[in-house]
Amino acid sequence: MNLFIINNIKALFSSEKGLISYIKNTLGFYPGNIYLYRLAFRHKSVALKISNGVKHSNERLEYLGDAVLGSVVADFLFKKFPYNDEGFLTGMRSKIVSRSSLNKLSYKLGLNKFIQSNGESKTQSKSINGDAFEALIGAIYLDKGYNFTKKIIINRIIKNHFDIEELVKLDVSAKSSLIEWVQKEKFSIEFNIVDEIGEGYKKLYVVEIVIDNKPICKGQDFSIKGAEKLASEKALTIILPEEKS
Amino acid sequence: MNLFIINNIKALFSSEKGLISYIKNTLGFYPGNIYLYRLAFRHKSVALKISNGVKHSNERLEYLGDAVLGSVVADFLFKKFPYNDEGFLTGMRSKIVSRSSLNKLSYKLGLNKFIQSNGESKTQSKSINGDAFEALIGAIYLDKGYNFTKKIIINRIIKNHFDIEELVKLDVSAKSSLIEWVQKEKFSIEFNIVDEIGEGYKKLYVVEIVIDNKPICKGQDFSIKGAEKLASEKALTIILPEEKS
Repeated sequence: MNLFIINNIKALFSSEKGLISYIKNTLGFYPGNIYLYRLAFRHKSVALKISNGVKHSNERLEYLGDAVLGSVVADFLFKKFPYNDEGFLTGMRSKIVSRSSLNKLSYKLGLNKFIQSNGESKTQSKSINGDAFEALIGAIYLDKGYNFTKKIIINRIIKNHFDIEELVKLDVSAKSSLIEWVQKEKFSIEFNIVDEIGEGYKKLYVVEIVIDNKPICKGQDFSIKGAEKLASEKALTIILPEEKS
Repeated sequence: MNLFIINNIKALFSSEKGLISYIKNTLGFYPGNIYLYRLAFRHKSVALKISNGVKHSNERLEYLGDAVLGSVVADFLFKKFPYNDEGFLTGMRSKIVSRSSLNKLSYKLGLNKFIQSNGESKTQSKSINGDAFEALIGAIYLDKGYNFTKKIIINRIIKNHFDIEELVKLDVSAKSSLIEWVQKEKFSIEFNIVDEIGEGYKKLYVVEIVIDNKPICKGQDFSIKGAEKLASEKALTIILPEEKS
């Protein structure tokens, strides 16, 4: 073997050793199939091309991990809050698995040190870190199964990195609550500017909310954001009447 | 005991027997905690009120079951289609767990015979049947765990009631693909009518798509639906460039 190949193999093993001990130290277990974990850190910008046009990156694992994480967090909250309704549970889950929350988490866990990507995506992609976290969950699930993954997520991630009491208090805007409800119900939503009254800084915007092609209500304000907020608050009282009473 | 109480107890046991044998016949197992399954069929319109303002209906189980179902279907498709990308997998999953798909499934399984609700919700609620199916999945998960639920969903539900080859061919509109992507990425989306050109039946509508408060592109057509479709197709080529090439 020439020196080039030897050096490459050395590098491979040393980076693998780093990944294995990182997982052991951070999450408390030894990975079985290390290939899955390496793949979890491979951003699509540096996807490996193999035959039949298949590209290997962490996107498929991210899709799987996102679903498994959603299920585990749903279960955790269901049991932690036995007297709260599903609206509360759905909201709490969104706060935990939101893109910004997972990006922050990924940094706290130091996942960014292992992510492989081209430089451009590192600075441009909003979600490269959170996506890698989800892909890592997908890898653990395939490697160790659901119950093991659930224990890791609850005992190593949620208990160490989330302050549930604080999250309960965290206020979420009316617009995001509405979008969340719409997504859960699998409806479409539009925020349409249907009228602009007056001119200049005194211009009033009228925003109409349309859910599943049905107009629900309007809100008006001097800014589009304000009009959307008012319309969203109104829409929430219409679609969730019992929760407001 | 007076006759009224005896008759009530009799009715309770006979309805419970019906539910137990239904589950055994349809899904192939005996329920452990029958209370969970009864709750899965209780629509919020007939929620039981207990102390501390807590209302018992199937909404919490539906929240849990929705998440578990999403995870199992994600896993099933991940393994069934090892060479397809996550866009394909996400699309396939949406087709399986869409509201209309779950409503149909619920009818096929005959769940509607067990759903308790007031008459009004039965005729008015679009999703009462699909919701009960999700709640049933939540009940199985709490009663028997993830791996058992996964086997039931794959072997008793997907294999018997879904034609995966047909689902692959099923065309999904550009607008729903776009909304699906936006939901996955946890962005907001607006379809704004920004201009109306001309009058009467020759009127052209200009729809602008705004994702996370950033204008993406416009489409125009003689109908709002048409303009939305064109704008959505354009948006898809912008946000998913590599999948279109």
